[in-house]
Amino acid sequence: MTVDPVELTQDLIRLPSVTPESEAPIAMLHALLEDAGFLCTRVDRNGIPNLHARWGRKGPVLGFNGHVDVVPPGDPDSWTSDPFGAEIRDGFLYGRGACDMKSGVAAFVAAAIEATERDIDGSVVLAITGDEEGDGIDGTAAILDWMRQTGEGMDACIVGEPTCPDHMGQMIKIGRRGSLTAWITAIGQQGHSAYPHQARNPIHGMIELLARLRAFPLDDDSDHFDETTLQVTGFDTGNAANNVIPARCTAMVNIRFNDAHSGVSLSNWLRAQAETVSRATDIRFDTDIKVSGESFVTAPGPLTDMVQRAVGNVTGIVPSLSTTGGTSDARFLARHCPVVEVGLVGATMHKVDEQVAVDHIHQLKAIYGRIIESYFA
Amino acid sequence: MTVDPVELTQDLIRLPSVTPESEAPIAMLHALLEDAGFLCTRVDRNGIPNLHARWGRKGPVLGFNGHVDVVPPGDPDSWTSDPFGAEIRDGFLYGRGACDMKSGVAAFVAAAIEATERDIDGSVVLAITGDEEGDGIDGTAAILDWMRQTGEGMDACIVGEPTCPDHMGQMIKIGRRGSLTAWITAIGQQGHSAYPHQARNPIHGMIELLARLRAFPLDDDSDHFDETTLQVTGFDTGNAANNVIPARCTAMVNIRFNDAHSGVSLSNWLRAQAETVSRATDIRFDTDIKVSGESFVTAPGPLTDMVQRAVGNVTGIVPSLSTTGGTSDARFLARHCPVVEVGLVGATMHKVDEQVAVDHIHQLKAIYGRIIESYFA
Ligand SMILES: [Zn+2]
Ligand SMILES: [Zn+2]
Repeated sequence: MTVDPVELTQDLIRLPSVTPESEAPIAMLHALLEDAGFLCTRVDRNGIPNLHARWGRKGPVLGFNGHVDVVPPGDPDSWTSDPFGAEIRDGFLYGRGACDMKSGVAAFVAAAIEATERDIDGSVVLAITGDEEGDGIDGTAAILDWMRQTGEGMDACIVGEPTCPDHMGQMIKIGRRGSLTAWITAIGQQGHSAYPHQARNPIHGMIELLARLRAFPLDDDSDHFDETTLQVTGFDTGNAANNVIPARCTAMVNIRFNDAHSGVSLSNWLRAQAETVSRATDIRFDTDIKVSGESFVTAPGPLTDMVQRAVGNVTGIVPSLSTTGGTSDARFLARHCPVVEVGLVGATMHKVDEQVAVDHIHQLKAIYGRIIESYFA
Repeated sequence: MTVDPVELTQDLIRLPSVTPESEAPIAMLHALLEDAGFLCTRVDRNGIPNLHARWGRKGPVLGFNGHVDVVPPGDPDSWTSDPFGAEIRDGFLYGRGACDMKSGVAAFVAAAIEATERDIDGSVVLAITGDEEGDGIDGTAAILDWMRQTGEGMDACIVGEPTCPDHMGQMIKIGRRGSLTAWITAIGQQGHSAYPHQARNPIHGMIELLARLRAFPLDDDSDHFDETTLQVTGFDTGNAANNVIPARCTAMVNIRFNDAHSGVSLSNWLRAQAETVSRATDIRFDTDIKVSGESFVTAPGPLTDMVQRAVGNVTGIVPSLSTTGGTSDARFLARHCPVVEVGLVGATMHKVDEQVAVDHIHQLKAIYGRIIESYFA
């Protein structure tokens, strides 16, 4: 049974699955993999469709992970062709999910089916979810919970997200920085701007706090990570009267942090800074913090070497090892086993006219094939 | 002809005149002053009723200025009695305009009528407007324009606005600080908070600019003024996505400035600061500045001495000379002649249950009577 990864990508794109409405592509892959001799289990949670497909009964277990949900296409009229049409023009396949990441799923499904037909000395698990672009709490995390409960597991996992900024083979990801968002409210005393001594201006306190957060050097690069960065992404008062000092204002701060920090250490640091400014200014700060992911890294070693070699053999390029970018489901998998992300060029992901080179999908299938081969060699 | 200033205040309050709908009280004062022998001229502009009333043909000319428009009462049900009922309870007169400033107008009208019946060696001019609480551009300014065009004028002017924070006789105002508002827009480059190097965060630029404006010592107190103060009264991005660096943000800055500065000098200073931060951060700043009034002062001297003595004689308290507070029509009058503001306790102005002590209205009439007497002595 041979599966063309480009045709499979097209079939998946033509089953629109704006997050988390992914029943159709999950069901299609379920049928396909069952046909190919995989033991398939639907691991749905809270209405989110998830698929666990296993070939083989013994260890070691090599896993592949990916998602078939996509972000909304926006206005379809701003696309050159139907976002769910999967049209190929001049060697490029267009559509929502073309690079993020129905192509990645199609490539590892095709590679796994091909590899298992030649037999392998271990097991291959495909963990495919319909909930990555949304909250992500009932997707890959649900599959991992189910695996833990049923004694399933993986010894290593490859994630098929797009990982190359510009050209194929350029980059693989061995970790990600963590992400923390703080919603800060500054509370002062309303008043008239002509009588500032009878008021306490929360904007002034907030500016002081944010200037302090910005000025504090969080760290330099660490071994596998870029430096920690802090961005103020929001600041609002909603005050229209230029002569009124408002009673409160809010700000939003997003921190991307490396392994020199943790969600807890940064939360404590941030609250301590607020406390210091509060004592100096008599402005109260309420701080609501959400850590959406801790940093993680798969230290360079046999697994990353093997993936680099596979990419190099197929593309002629030795990919760099990176921990840049936003979060992905790799943050859940990393708690379970070593994880490496390797995939296509992601330049157009989440954009209008999302596209991927047809050749690259074939290359990616070949890369995954070599990874399976090497892993069980 | 004797006019009771309390009854006149009540009559005026019972003619509701939420700014600028002041036809009824202006017409009533017109008739009253004409009866009393004043030469009355309506100096309306753009539909705003204004009254110029003059007694006497020769100099010197002592002017009184006040307004009969009032701010809206808000929800009448939150008032203890009808905001336009002018009810007297326990020695206090309640109603919209009770202290700001139908009482002040009634007091100088009553005092002027009484004084002119005993004859005076000069002229008294009453410049009464229906547009002070709104934009104020067609009120006292219109009367002054008309005076300039017709060869009328004043050698000194008393403004009847409430000037006492807590108790009668406490304070007179000999000037005001100027007021400047800047609406600043910071323009950067939108991006993802995980890739800050590919974006330029306008919030960071704005924080830097505002911290710089805040830190810069504008001045210390000057001879007759408090120090210049700068308040950031608004800061907005309207960005809901915590992982998106927005393209732009806006801030509002209000400066109350003394005579060490001018609207032009502060505008230049502010733009220079923005330019400096712009060069350092690559964030562009668009700055829209409005100067709603320059600072002005009537230097302490014979006029302020005379007003202080009049207040002291009536109340037993020597009032302080102040330049605090927001703007008033005195800013227009100050370009024309020396001006002093002297009036009632303003604690409840613009508030629910606006009120004034009945005794204080009588005291204020007596103060204005002594001022007229001394001025022409
Ligand atoms: Zn993705
Ligand atoms: Zn007023």
